[in-house]
Amino acid sequence: MTIQTELIGETAVEFPCPPLGAAELSAAEAERMAGMFKALADPVRLRLFSRVAAHSSGEASVCDIQNVGVSQPTVSHHLKKLREAGLIISERRGTWVYCRVAPGVLPAMAQMLSPRDMHIN
Amino acid sequence: MTIQTELIGETAVEFPCPPLGAAELSAAEAERMAGMFKALADPVRLRLFSRVAAHSSGEASVCDIQNVGVSQPTVSHHLKKLREAGLIISERRGTWVYCRVAPGVLPAMAQMLSPRDMHIN
Repeated sequence: MTIQTELIGETAVEFPCPPLGAAELSAAEAERMAGMFKALADPVRLRLFSRVAAHSSGEASVCDIQNVGVSQPTVSHHLKKLREAGLIISERRGTWVYCRVAPGVLPAMAQMLSPRDMHIN
Repeated sequence: MTIQTELIGETAVEFPCPPLGAAELSAAEAERMAGMFKALADPVRLRLFSRVAAHSSGEASVCDIQNVGVSQPTVSHHLKKLREAGLIISERRGTWVYCRVAPGVLPAMAQMLSPRDMHIN
């Protein structure tokens, strides 16, 4: 038996992003980076993202992460926002949807927020 | 001559925050961390924060950073939001207001976004 797999949406974020403390941001860079921060600026969305990031297998089914006190359509809405911001990747396998953190996202965001000394020295 | 100095506002954020990939966030942790991301989720606010963080002396006068294409009252509004989120500290010295990144903010936010492996190993 073959299980059909399908990637849902596309990763919209380009990396790397410059460290905030290393140079002044251009308007275009600020626009792009603000979009990523905006995706994490909602407590429910942040908890969903954290559940995906913390899942032991590196990816989580939508069933695994939806117990955050909101309805299933609201979970889907938030996952869509995370996907559009390029923070997670979703894949349908058979009847289940699995999510994982997009490759490189966490190191790139951590690098944006690294103290200046780490980049100058 | 003595120059009057006055701290404006207070740092509202408590550190440390847990890494997103190390464990699932509680609702309270998510609320607190989402507030910080929200403060950086606006392009103009992010540029102002970047200008403070990148300033060679470690702090910037409001004059130094206000050339981001918005009015001075809008700059003041954004600086207030950054201050309320605990991301910057403002100090009035004589007739000038100076801003700097709140101590520990950038490493704490970078730690939140560190890949899981950095915390487990």
